Amino acid sequence: MKTDVEIASEACMEPIQAAASKLGFTPDDLHLYGKYAAKIPLDVLKRFDSRPNGKLVLVTAITATKAGEGKTVTSIGLIEALGRLGVKVAGGLREPSMGPVFGIKGGATGGGYAQVYPMWDINLHFTGDIHAASAAHNLLSAMVENHLAKGNELQIDPTRVTWKKTMDTNCRELRNIVVGLGGKSTGGIPRESGFIITSASEISAILALANSVSDLRKRLGEIVVAYDIRGKPVTAEQIGCVGAMMLILKDAINPNLVQTLEGDPVYIHGFPFANIAHGNSSVISTKYGLKTADVLVTEGGFAADLGAEKFFDIVCRQAGFRPDCAVVVASVRAIKLHDALGEESLERGFANLDKHVENIKKFGVPPVVAINRFSIDTDEEIEAVRKHCGELGVPCAISEVFAKGGEGGNELAQAVMKVLEEGKADFHTLYEDSLTIKEKIHKVATEIYGASGVRYVGTAERDIKSIEQSGKGNLPVCVAKTQLSISDNPALKGAPTGWELEVREVALSAGAGFIVPICGTIMLIPGLPTDPAAKHIDYTDDGKIIGLS
Amino acid sequence: MKTDVEIASEACMEPIQAAASKLGFTPDDLHLYGKYAAKIPLDVLKRFDSRPNGKLVLVTAITATKAGEGKTVTSIGLIEALGRLGVKVAGGLREPSMGPVFGIKGGATGGGYAQVYPMWDINLHFTGDIHAASAAHNLLSAMVENHLAKGNELQIDPTRVTWKKTMDTNCRELRNIVVGLGGKSTGGIPRESGFIITSASEISAILALANSVSDLRKRLGEIVVAYDIRGKPVTAEQIGCVGAMMLILKDAINPNLVQTLEGDPVYIHGFPFANIAHGNSSVISTKYGLKTADVLVTEGGFAADLGAEKFFDIVCRQAGFRPDCAVVVASVRAIKLHDALGEESLERGFANLDKHVENIKKFGVPPVVAINRFSIDTDEEIEAVRKHCGELGVPCAISEVFAKGGEGGNELAQAVMKVLEEGKADFHTLYEDSLTIKEKIHKVATEIYGASGVRYVGTAERDIKSIEQSGKGNLPVCVAKTQLSISDNPALKGAPTGWELEVREVALSAGAGFIVPICGTIMLIPGLPTDPAAKHIDYTDDGKIIGLS
Repeated sequence: MKTDVEIASEACMEPIQAAASKLGFTPDDLHLYGKYAAKIPLDVLKRFDSRPNGKLVLVTAITATKAGEGKTVTSIGLIEALGRLGVKVAGGLREPSMGPVFGIKGGATGGGYAQVYPMWDINLHFTGDIHAASAAHNLLSAMVENHLAKGNELQIDPTRVTWKKTMDTNCRELRNIVVGLGGKSTGGIPRESGFIITSASEISAILALANSVSDLRKRLGEIVVAYDIRGKPVTAEQIGCVGAMMLILKDAINPNLVQTLEGDPVYIHGFPFANIAHGNSSVISTKYGLKTADVLVTEGGFAADLGAEKFFDIVCRQAGFRPDCAVVVASVRAIKLHDALGEESLERGFANLDKHVENIKKFGVPPVVAINRFSIDTDEEIEAVRKHCGELGVPCAISEVFAKGGEGGNELAQAVMKVLEEGKADFHTLYEDSLTIKEKIHKVATEIYGASGVRYVGTAERDIKSIEQSGKGNLPVCVAKTQLSISDNPALKGAPTGWELEVREVALSAGAGFIVPICGTIMLIPGLPTDPAAKHIDYTDDGKIIGLS
Repeated sequence: MKTDVEIASEACMEPIQAAASKLGFTPDDLHLYGKYAAKIPLDVLKRFDSRPNGKLVLVTAITATKAGEGKTVTSIGLIEALGRLGVKVAGGLREPSMGPVFGIKGGATGGGYAQVYPMWDINLHFTGDIHAASAAHNLLSAMVENHLAKGNELQIDPTRVTWKKTMDTNCRELRNIVVGLGGKSTGGIPRESGFIITSASEISAILALANSVSDLRKRLGEIVVAYDIRGKPVTAEQIGCVGAMMLILKDAINPNLVQTLEGDPVYIHGFPFANIAHGNSSVISTKYGLKTADVLVTEGGFAADLGAEKFFDIVCRQAGFRPDCAVVVASVRAIKLHDALGEESLERGFANLDKHVENIKKFGVPPVVAINRFSIDTDEEIEAVRKHCGELGVPCAISEVFAKGGEGGNELAQAVMKVLEEGKADFHTLYEDSLTIKEKIHKVATEIYGASGVRYVGTAERDIKSIEQSGKGNLPVCVAKTQLSISDNPALKGAPTGWELEVREVALSAGAGFIVPICGTIMLIPGLPTDPAAKHIDYTDDGKIIGLS
């Protein structure tokens, strides 16, 4: 079969205006980035404010294994399949980070005949949103450091600057650094600091969670960058950097529109990394996806314990969305790798799928299991999955969109439409705002992850006390933990029980409106693997792209 | 008078297609970034390869003072004035860096009625070229650090990694840092490192100096990132990162096109900072500016000792350009601040202007002095400048383009056209490739800066030996030194003599094709001032921009 980039290169695409017109946008509404991508200004979107909302479908998945479950492929294929059914559909995806593109995971634009176009722009700088978030983040950091070095009027405690630096590159060497060397006039104040990847920046979360320009401003101002010598939080507003960040982010707040290989419109707005960030599409693109289409298919990052839980408990809580259906993507190969005994038993591997399906139901959202079929899957294996889902009482559909595009997603599209027509969703969040921070963490840990309890180490207890003292204890939690297990231990497959969630640090994202318990050994910026994708990527003199996927 | 952003907001502009058509581009040739900016792909530009070259006018200036001489304003006004004369003119400017925009200097899109449009995009992310250069630079750095941490097959000496990190933000705290802390698996190898601003990255220079996609590849591969334990240079090619950088830079290599407030086409391509970088427009945009217009007005960074010297000795040497005229911009107020006695004597302040005019002549390029007139300048002062230039035998023209747009640049445009028609230019570089590194530095120091000699301190002598041993001693020099004096001491005004240039370090930019002597106390990444511009910038809820200039 052809590579993803070959398939995309050979596609005969209409300019973005055609896909945009399906949602009611005129050519003049679009702020173009080349012929195939555009930003839609908020002023244009506001025209649709009074329209009724379409249905909201969240695509999530079982826990990632090295086999891959193909969640983005399935999301895009489902959009294509719904388009073929004549449904007025829009997609909602996240903007790829260049860290994984050049690291281990690759891009995030689907694959085969289920891709968004053009993958060589979307997977790189796209419309510059991630670069803008980096620039705003680092300007705020520079302003904080400059404040420290130039008189420190706010009496910031130099050992309690919580606002680090950011970069959209995988570099473990920047995780822990010492800045400010070389003397005060050269380097400022020597301090321990570090970098996080841009997707994990609170700026990224704020961009994705803001529902208007004024909300963006309010949230940016509320960012806590440090604590002063009396232990009181110091905000970005006090640093005097909000207006400048607003200017830097003035275009990034506008959703981007691209299309599938079959010409279906897809909003791509908001950043990935549901392990160390909230990892869901932006509120604004979701809101207007619902206003401009009859069905919006949006994708949450990683498995249902991460992206879906955060979509329900953070995004839907803040924005008031009420999901109508959740597609849980799995593959036969990935299910087999979830056999906790390591023997690739399909039966034992179901434990992981079952737990995620059970979790989805806890939010009152009807699940549909999508099996992303690979050519090596046997009919017997596929039948075993169907039978298992039947026993669970959950609709199950086979998807072959990678090889066949929207045509291969027909069964899935039908299953999803059936759930939407039944209208049985009764969405609610997992917990109330009023629980204590520890109660919220405990609820997510035990009910979603299957932990027996929570263990606080490092600065976690102190952090929680400090957040509660600052009056922010009512915010929901956005857990940072490994995506490789439903637990906090990357090595545990299936649906492990009898383990304790280890929280080593708890960070406040007051502007984003959540609290981040950092669990296990998760790092907020990835490193490069031994054989990075960057080594195998090329762009030839005649414009041919090699190795990008 | 209105602010720059108010003037730009009230301008009634045609879409970029109109300005582009003046140079022979069709709407379909343009890769749009919104309605008013576009990239022109190299494939399109190649259509113009067989056209004869237009005339090349370089705009430079006297040494910067706090009064400002208005070089970019004068450049843009000259373009507007030539357009009004019916000349088929194009401009060539550099892309602003966000560091100064939020720091002390502000943007770089002109001012008053001599602006390029739209300043709120050009001064920020624009078409993402600087972000792309940062991303390529930092990926290469991450790949080098990853190589070190994962077996170090190339036997890189961890104490001799010359490739640092980069960011387009003014942050002194990142000048000198320690990376790689937290243990090998978490952070890699602890090492001293640091950040430079993106404009000073060799990637930026390579983007600006490459004349084709294949030349870009060749130059990227030649970057020396470190030395191995035997003292041999290790290149980006050996690290295996060239293809990935090519992909990251695939759009950045294409020139950007915008327009003046009067609709004249202006290429904006290549980055600023002629103090710590080469600071000139890209070779590709200059080449095709000459192919698509009868007169190309391009601007070099800072004063003639920096931007112009580097344009002549690096850009023209590498690309074969032969400048036809150089405009030296001055203002009465700035000349007065060059009185070395600090008494603001116009007569004594001429020393700086005279030295730059003399320097321009050393390259065989006929100078024109442009006086950027401010409302507070008296007729007597203007007359004194005219008289002085008359005595020097140099054409002099008064420019009032800030207040009047192209109409205020008529005298200057006429003076420039007269020089072009006379055709007396006889361009040559200051020195031959074959001189030793020290001979080249000595020649620039004594003939251009007016130094009595050169003093080598720090690692400079050792660096030079190492560069010569690697066979790169034949490259031209790109001096990094203060822009605030023609000397290496920011405090010295006028045209100081009897001082020695202090070189503290010499860096090799093998891919860019130059050697960088780092002089005095110049830093490769600026810090923020006590009262950064960022504090006074705002973007309101109804989309109004405040404080950007």
